[in-house]
This record gives sequence, C-alpha cells and structure tokens, in this order.
Amino acid sequence: MATKIWNVYLSGEIHSDWREQIKAGVEAADLPVELTGPITVHEDSDDCGVAIFGAETDKLWHDRKGALLNSVRTGTLIQEADIVIVRFGEKYKQWNAAFDAGYAAASGIPYITLHPTEHDHALKEVDAGAAAMAREPRQIVEALAYIIGGAMPRR
Amino acid sequence: MATKIWNVYLSGEIHSDWREQIKAGVEAADLPVELTGPITVHEDSDDCGVAIFGAETDKLWHDRKGALLNSVRTGTLIQEADIVIVRFGEKYKQWNAAFDAGYAAASGIPYITLHPTEHDHALKEVDAGAAAMAREPRQIVEALAYIIGGAMPRR
Amino acid sequence: MATKIWNVYLSGEIHSDWREQIKAGVEAADLPVELTGPITVHEDSDDCGVAIFGAETDKLWHDRKGALLNSVRTGTLIQEADIVIVRFGEKYKQWNAAFDAGYAAASGIPYITLHPTEHDHALKEVDAGAAAMAREPRQIVEALAYIIGGAMPRR
Amino acid sequence: MATKIWNVYLSGEIHSDWREQIKAGVEAADLPVELTGPITVHEDSDDCGVAIFGAETDKLWHDRKGALLNSVRTGTLIQEADIVIVRFGEKYKQWNAAFDAGYAAASGIPYITLHPTEHDHALKEVDAGAAAMAREPRQIVEALAYIIGGAMPRR
Amino acid sequence: MATKIWNVYLSGEIHSDWREQIKAGVEAADLPVELTGPITVHEDSDDCGVAIFGAETDKLWHDRKGALLNSVRTGTLIQEADIVIVRFGEKYKQWNAAFDAGYAAASGIPYITLHPTEHDHALKEVDAGAAAMAREPRQIVEALAYIIGGAMPRR
Amino acid sequence: MATKIWNVYLSGEIHSDWREQIKAGVEAADLPVELTGPITVHEDSDDCGVAIFGAETDKLWHDRKGALLNSVRTGTLIQEADIVIVRFGEKYKQWNAAFDAGYAAASGIPYITLHPTEHDHALKEVDAGAAAMAREPRQIVEALAYIIGGAMPRR
Amino acid sequence: MATKIWNVYLSGEIHSDWREQIKAGVEAADLPVELTGPITVHEDSDDCGVAIFGAETDKLWHDRKGALLNSVRTGTLIQEADIVIVRFGEKYKQWNAAFDAGYAAASGIPYITLHPTEHDHALKEVDAGAAAMAREPRQIVEALAYIIGGAMPRR
Amino acid sequence: MATKIWNVYLSGEIHSDWREQIKAGVEAADLPVELTGPITVHEDSDDCGVAIFGAETDKLWHDRKGALLNSVRTGTLIQEADIVIVRFGEKYKQWNAAFDAGYAAASGIPYITLHPTEHDHALKEVDAGAAAMAREPRQIVEALAYIIGGAMPRR
Repeated sequence: MATKIWNVYLSGEIHSDWREQIKAGVEAADLPVELTGPITVHEDSDDCGVAIFGAETDKLWHDRKGALLNSVRTGTLIQEADIVIVRFGEKYKQWNAAFDAGYAAASGIPYITLHPTEHDHALKEVDAGAAAMAREPRQIVEALAYIIGGAMPRR
Repeated sequence: MATKIWNVYLSGEIHSDWREQIKAGVEAADLPVELTGPITVHEDSDDCGVAIFGAETDKLWHDRKGALLNSVRTGTLIQEADIVIVRFGEKYKQWNAAFDAGYAAASGIPYITLHPTEHDHALKEVDAGAAAMAREPRQIVEALAYIIGGAMPRR
Repeated sequence: MATKIWNVYLSGEIHSDWREQIKAGVEAADLPVELTGPITVHEDSDDCGVAIFGAETDKLWHDRKGALLNSVRTGTLIQEADIVIVRFGEKYKQWNAAFDAGYAAASGIPYITLHPTEHDHALKEVDAGAAAMAREPRQIVEALAYIIGGAMPRR
Repeated sequence: MATKIWNVYLSGEIHSDWREQIKAGVEAADLPVELTGPITVHEDSDDCGVAIFGAETDKLWHDRKGALLNSVRTGTLIQEADIVIVRFGEKYKQWNAAFDAGYAAASGIPYITLHPTEHDHALKEVDAGAAAMAREPRQIVEALAYIIGGAMPRR
Repeated sequence: MATKIWNVYLSGEIHSDWREQIKAGVEAADLPVELTGPITVHEDSDDCGVAIFGAETDKLWHDRKGALLNSVRTGTLIQEADIVIVRFGEKYKQWNAAFDAGYAAASGIPYITLHPTEHDHALKEVDAGAAAMAREPRQIVEALAYIIGGAMPRR
Repeated sequence: MATKIWNVYLSGEIHSDWREQIKAGVEAADLPVELTGPITVHEDSDDCGVAIFGAETDKLWHDRKGALLNSVRTGTLIQEADIVIVRFGEKYKQWNAAFDAGYAAASGIPYITLHPTEHDHALKEVDAGAAAMAREPRQIVEALAYIIGGAMPRR
Repeated sequence: MATKIWNVYLSGEIHSDWREQIKAGVEAADLPVELTGPITVHEDSDDCGVAIFGAETDKLWHDRKGALLNSVRTGTLIQEADIVIVRFGEKYKQWNAAFDAGYAAASGIPYITLHPTEHDHALKEVDAGAAAMAREPRQIVEALAYIIGGAMPRR
Repeated sequence: MATKIWNVYLSGEIHSDWREQIKAGVEAADLPVELTGPITVHEDSDDCGVAIFGAETDKLWHDRKGALLNSVRTGTLIQEADIVIVRFGEKYKQWNAAFDAGYAAASGIPYITLHPTEHDHALKEVDAGAAAMAREPRQIVEALAYIIGGAMPRR
C-alpha cells in the first residue's frame, strides 16, 4: 500500500563518491527513493553561465552567471525534496552546503548532515537544526530504509 | 470520474489493532485510500536512532536520536495527508498523538479523533478542533466512505 | 538599542504556581517580556461557553462550547508568540499542552518544554522538537535572559 | 513622513569589530535602523545551554544544547529583519553565516554579503542570491543610507 | 503536449441539474477536466454526521455533526481545485456557496459565479472577486474550453 | 502586563444597530478592543466607485466599481483582524457576510456568527467553522471580555 | 477609534509630479496615510550600486548593481504596503511599474492603477487585477479617503 | 532515475515565433519539459470574454472580461511552473510580460528573461530579479538542458 516515492536531495561536497555510495545502497535495498542533487561536474557548474549566455571579462560576473543558473536547479529540487542530505567533506569551505541547509530549514524540509567528527564544533548550529547527523553514507541509506519502511539496520 | 486517492494518516496508539481494523474496512469497502502512519514497532521506534547513528550512554539522548529520526517520517506523511486520524487508547500518556493533532490543526489539515468516552473531558480542546469524534474504527471507515463517495453507513 | 518586547506564551498545567514563578523572575530580571497564556481559572475555562451562549444538557457540547471559545484566545496568542513554554505537571493528561506544542511546531514558533524527568520517555517526541527542555521555572527565566540579552545564569 | 524603523540583522563573524563599525556609522548618519544579531561572546554562546539546563559529558550534546538555545534568538531576529548582513571573515569555517544566508533567502528576506575578495569564488552561490556584495562595513552603512533615504555616498 | 488535468470544483445549489449539464458539456467537448463537488444528496448531507457518529436530540448539533463532516470533503477538494464554479439558484439562501467563494478568494483560487440577473446586486461583492460571471452552465463549459485550450465558442 | 489591543472586524448586516450595541458594550466594559468594519452607509457603498472613477451606464459595472473599491477596505481589515464577527439579520441575502466568513476561515482567522435561530439550518456550514454562535450583540461583548481577560458574564 | 495608519506605496513613473499631488491631497484631507515609494532621483537610482560598491566597465553590471540595491527598498516597502498605486505615464516603457503590479498581485496586496486612456488596451491584464483604475492623482486621494473613512468625493 | 517533468511557462510577446523555436529545440534535445503559456491568438485573447459571456458596448469592459478570463489560465499555469521564460520583443509595451515576471518573483518561481540589448536599461529591474538574461531562444533551450541534465552547450 506504500506507493510514495521519496525525493531525497544530496547537497554539498562534489569531490568524493559519497553520492554514488548512497545511490548503490538505495538500489541494493530497493528503496522507493528518487535521488537528486546539483550538477556535480565542477568546471561545468563554474562555466555554464558564460558558456550559454556569453563570456565575461570579470571572474566575479563569470561566477555569478553560473551560480544563478545553478540556483534554478538547486532551488527547485530542494523545494521538491522530502529530505535533504547535506555533506561536508574534509576539505574546502563548502558554504553552499551550509546555505542549502539553511534554505531547507527555513522551508520546513528536514535535513540530515553527513560529516566527519572534526567538523562537529564548527557545524554545531547546522547540526542543531538537523534531524540526524551521520558519519558514513551507509548510515544515510539505513536512515532512509527506516524512515520509509521501518527497516532496522542489519550489521 | 473520481480518480483522487485520499491520503489518510493514522496517528497515535500503537498497542491495539485499530489500524488493522481500519485497513480491513477500507479494503472491504474498496475505498481509494492510502493509509500511512508512524513506525508501530515500539522498540524499533525507540532504538532506531542509536542503532543507525551510534549508541548513547544517556537515555535522554538515546530517545532524542530516535524521536528526531521518526519525526522525518511523521512530519512528512502528516503534511501530505488529506485527513489525519488521531487515536487515544485507554492507557498511556499518548502526548505524541495530541502533538500530531496540534500539528495538523496549525497546518490546516482536518483531523478526526478516535477515543473512548472516558477521555472526553481531558480531550475537549483536541476534540474542539476536530472534524469529528469517533468511538470505533468502524466509524472512521464509514466517515471515509461518506467523505470520498457520499456512501451512508449500512447497519 | 534593543527595543523589542518578546512575547512568551505559557502553555499547559494550571494547578501549580509555575507561571507566577516565571513572572516574578522576569520582573526581577527586568526582562522586556510580555507573558501571555490561557485562562487559568479551571471552572471558568470549562463553563465559559455555556455561561455566555446558553446551557447544554449534554456534557460533551457543554465542553465543546467552552473549548472552542478558549481556542480563540489560545490560537491568537500562540501565533503572536516569539516563544512558547509548554509545561507538563506531575499529574493529569495535559493533552492540550502537547496539542499546543504541535501547533507551535507546525507554525514555526520555537518552544521550550518544562517537565519533571519522569515524563522524559513519554514526551520524547515533544521534546525532540523543542529548543530546550527545562526542569524548573527558574531555568525558563534564565533562558529568556540569555536569548534576549546574552545574560549567563548567576548561581 | 518616513517613520519606519529598519531592522537589520548582522550575521556571521564574531572575531573582528565590523558590527561596531556599522553601529558607529549608523549612529553617525542618524539612520532609523535597529541593529540586531547573535550573542557575540564566543564562550557564552558555546556554554549557555549547559550553564542553564545542566552539564553534558559529551561535547557534542554540550554544543547541541547551546546551539539550540541560540537558534531561538537568531531564528526570531532573522525572521523579523528587513535586511540581513552576512559577514565572512578571513578565517574560520563560518558555516553558520552561510546557513543564515540560506535561511534568509528561503524566507524572502534580502541579504547583503560582506567579505574579502579571497572568498569570492567559494561564496559564489551565496553571493548570487544576495542583493549586494560589500567589502567594507562602511559600504553597508552607505547601502542602508541609500535604501532608507536615497542618500548617495559622500567620499 | 498539454497533459494537465484541470480540477474544477462545482459549489452551490443542489436542486437543479446544472452540474449534470456541465458534466455533459465537458464530456462532449472532451475536455481534460476532473469535476468535483459536495455530496449533493440533500438528506444525506444533513444526516451523515449522526448516522455515523450517533444521534443528537438537539437539531443544532445534529446539523453541526453533519456540516463538520461535509467540510472535510469540501475543504479538501476546494483547496485542490484549479477553478471553483459557484452557483446561486433562484431560491434558497445558499450561504454555503458564498462561503465557498470567500474561501476560494482567500486561498488564491480563481472562481466563476453562475447565477441569474436577479441576484446581481445582492452578489456584487462576490462577483467582484470572480474571474467571470456566467448565466448558463453552457458558458461554464465554454469558459473551460477556452481557458484550457483556447477554443472559442461555436454558436 | 496585557497590552495587546484586539482587532475585531464586524461583518454583515448594515440595517440594524448591532454594531453600535457592541461598541457601547465594549466601551462600558473598557475592553482593549479596536472595532473595524465595512462602510455602512448603504448608498455610499453602492456608489463610491462611480462617484470617484466616473459613471457607468450599466448597473452591473456601476456595482462592480463600488464593490471592488470596498474590497480594498474589507480585505485589508479582515486580514488584520484577530476575530471576525459575522452578522446575519432577519432579512436580505447577506451573501457578503457569508463570503467574509469563508474568507476568514481560509485565512485562519477565528470568527463568531451572530444570527437568529431561524437561520440555523441554512447557516449550518458557516456555523460549523465558527468559534461560537451568538444570538445577541451582548453575547459578543461577553465573549470578547472572556477571551481577552477571562471575565465571566454577570447577569 | 480608528488608529490604523495606512501604508500606501506609490510605484512607477518618476518624471511628473503625481506623487507630490497625492501627498498634498492626503495632507489636505488629513488622512492617516504613510506614503512610500522608490528613490525617485533618476540618476541616483541608476548609479547607487556602483557609487557604493565600486565601478563596473560594463553598463549591464552597472545597472544590475543599482537595480539589485533598489530592490531591497522596493521589495520591502511593497510587502509592507496596504495598497499599491501603480502609475504609468505617457512615455517610457515603465516595465518596473508593471513588475510591481504583478508582485503586489501575487502577494495578495490590492493595487490601483493610474494611467491615461491611451494605455487602456495595452494595460488590460494589469488593470484586470486592480481594485480600481484612476486617471488623475486626485482620484487616488478620493479613493483613499473613502477606503479609510468612508468619505465620498466633494466636487 | 530522473523522472521529473519540468514545467516551463513561456510568457510575453506573441508576434514572433520564439515559442516555436523553443519547442523545436526542446524536442530536438529530447528534454523532459512541458511547455505552457497564454493563449497566443491575439484576437481570441481579446474577445474571449464577450464571446462567451456577452457583448459590452464599452471597450474597457470588453477588454476586462477577456483579461479576467485569460488570468485564470495564466495565473494557474505560472503558479505550477518550475521556470518562467519572459520574452520582450522589439515592439509593443508588453506590460503583461513584466507583470508576469513580478508575479513569478513574488511567488518564488525563478524566471529567465529573453530580450534584445536595446531593452537592457529599461528592463534593469526585471532582469535584476531574473536567474538569467537570454538574447536568443536557442539559449533558453541550452539553459533548460543544463538545468535539467547538466548538458553543456555544443556549438
């Protein structure tokens, strides 16, 4: 009787394979989940704006055109998401991940963070608004399996 | 011409078979209804958080991690519901049922309460915001049959 | 430069003096707080409906008329509140307190619970959505003093 | 005829005197502005939760209790703001600043970023949603003077 | 490429065959329209509450129980409607029709009124908020055909 | 400590002195209430549109211009109201009163109806959404006195 | 008893003295109105962005920086307005006026247009959503006088 | 795994074939896009109101009836759109296009403008709220291809 497809948006880090791990886990568990996320090809997400709408001499406007175009995708998909997963990797500023978390929070969409312990203190405000804090992609899959169907983790 | 599937969330007591009675009644009447609800395996709903995200020594945080994870499911499904049924059994505090009723009320989602007469006075504020007050699961099925298709009860 | 008056709604138990304690604490600390809450004269809150609009032979409708009238006050004041304090005492069902917490949660209004440890497990879903969980009215005053002006508790 | 007081929330970095500079500028220009912001005493904002509600052995829950309490202040004041200023300093992760920007964006509240050029690329998504990007506190004051009264900068 | 099904709620008078006329017209024109509306069996809509939840000695509560139950259907279907048609017949008070029009207006849902000229003055406030004012069910079908597919009326 | 002024909008019948009775009662009880309502000079509310914006030959557009202008006042004041009182007199269609009730309902604003018993059945849907049903203006004043300050009626 | 100050935003044309005429009329009639509007010094509204945040070589980004800064003022003041007046003069494209009208419409804020007859056909969609269509600033003042206090025009 | 159909509303100019170019491009690229828009037969969009609901002697009301009817289509489809494309051609006032842009902006729906450089200054406020500014229909197709699937333009 459970026909709902759960929309799960995967926000944040684009330099490791965490999205692939979650995708593989979701498929292995045969969960009724549709995974979405930003465009993860770094150079394309930087250059899309100028490639389509014309070059800019100033790097700031080059970036602006790309970021605005990307925001159409990310804003639309986050608003449609049932759950947002926000990943902070070991490196980089990843302010866009924190921005997405704030965006989800203000939109009333539950989010789960995924980050190593070293970021715990710096992320305390972001974690405080989260429904859960995970360390491994595997835990995200387990959380989805429980949320959707009540399955407890088998380890 | 009526193609709508009605989402009905079944909130509250998890120690009797009232959900099964409603499910059986809905199926017997062949109503276009999708029933949803919380995870009803008591120990799993208590332990899901620590089972997935790691143990806690303090029972309070053990419970917190579980309750937050469960809230992703319940919050999402209540917001998608056309109607929320809120069941108060003979025993237990069942504050989460009253919480769900308040949540539905503030979200503009109609709810119907289901409880014995002994709770009438204590539940008067919750009942005052309800679209109906039922005593038996059978009445919930009858109400759905009428709301959806105008069928009057046959007794 | 801080001219904001903070609206704090005090929901729940009406049989102990917790509201008076908070009021005294707020005044002692000279906090810019306006305290509101339900009508706390128990018999009046039961009988207001029939006293104004006419008697009912059935206790259920007697209660209904009162509860609906009270809901005008409580719904209006909760929606205007910056913060809702939800008190669960040692006794009674207090479902209306849990209802108010759910109402605040769905309205995006932060709430703080106030209850003894014996209710911790039964209230875990309500506490999971709270900004804090207090044991004593004194802690509510301290929390307000910090939230409003950054004052740390002096003990 | 202009009687409106503009609420301006100052989010982000707490280790330099940028808030004081804006405050001094706003006062010098006699702007009808009420400045708000988070509690900026670092240790208090870390310890407020446990100081009021009781100690935690686990640093994670220590931080959680503080962050949740702080969120009552920040969430309330951001939602009441006409404009949010989001400051990213030279150091630190400052994910809470990006979180606040996302929160403001989803709430339909305009925000202006304030950061050095070295962060431009990393902040391109956050800047793309901003009404302006400033380098110096002075520019924030000038922007407020223009927004509120049409005053052009005198340099 | 037009795959949208338009939800059209038919509110108001239940004593003439205007709904059937619109239904026949919509089918004849093969419009992608799903028609919804209240339960139109007058006695059932009066008695549904007591039939399901138990008899009342007071006619007022008899009616109340029925009206509340009907509101679950009507409120849900109006909120899901793209367009509401509000019919005022020659007779009866039909305050529920005007109530539905106000409900649609406040919900941002466009509505079209359908009534004879004799009601024009009395309905001027209701008509002022309408997207159109029709005299005949045929005009409703024509309006839907134009709105959905740009078809001009053939007469 | 109660500094709130309650906005109460008086909707409906303009041919009897019920508004004056409520106003006198509110003043006698010294309630912190601001009463608002539509323009009650019947001919002015009919003719305001053409008087200001130019004559119309067709009565329909004459009425339309007036009704639209009146809607600026009524829509604004209802949305600002804490409570809407909806009066149905003995005569007239009073569809605008029912429209206002529906508007308040969809806007989440509590309303109280005021009408003689003869309208009970015809108004059952409107009454079902109301917080109370009064027969006399005096009861409205008593309800306000209770809602605002907990005063029980003295008779 | 009428203490409300009505916020009226004056959008559109900045090349004639229509705002001054309305201001003078409002003052002459002693109406409780607060008039707001965009910055009307044309060159300042063009150059404010670069004057404050730094020059741009490309006119497009020069304009963008100014327009974004102006949007903080206009967006904030429109959202706070009870009524928006939208003026289209004889010349210029004035797309920002139409933009403001659409913005007000989607925000549920009533607006009144003010334009010569020659624009009637081109503005028919904008006028269709308006509460009134005026030809002269004097009519705006008369409309406000009626809306606020029921005063009929004296001519 | 990407099953979402993107709703794209094409607003504005109806005198050139830009909609057909976008449609052809979307089909050539096999994008999961549903294109919607206003009725583009100019005379029908002018006359629909009177053709269905009866003639008017005054051109103003003739236009009004048509514009109101068209608003049911345009308002509904814009609100359902993920993205709105707003086209300003070389000629005509096109205030309805700017109105739609303002409507989308206030509704939180991203929009992309499409216009020649000659309009850049006059459209600076409209462009400032846009996610992108295109010159050619081809760029709209490229933007959709990137937003939906990350495809970079091939030229």
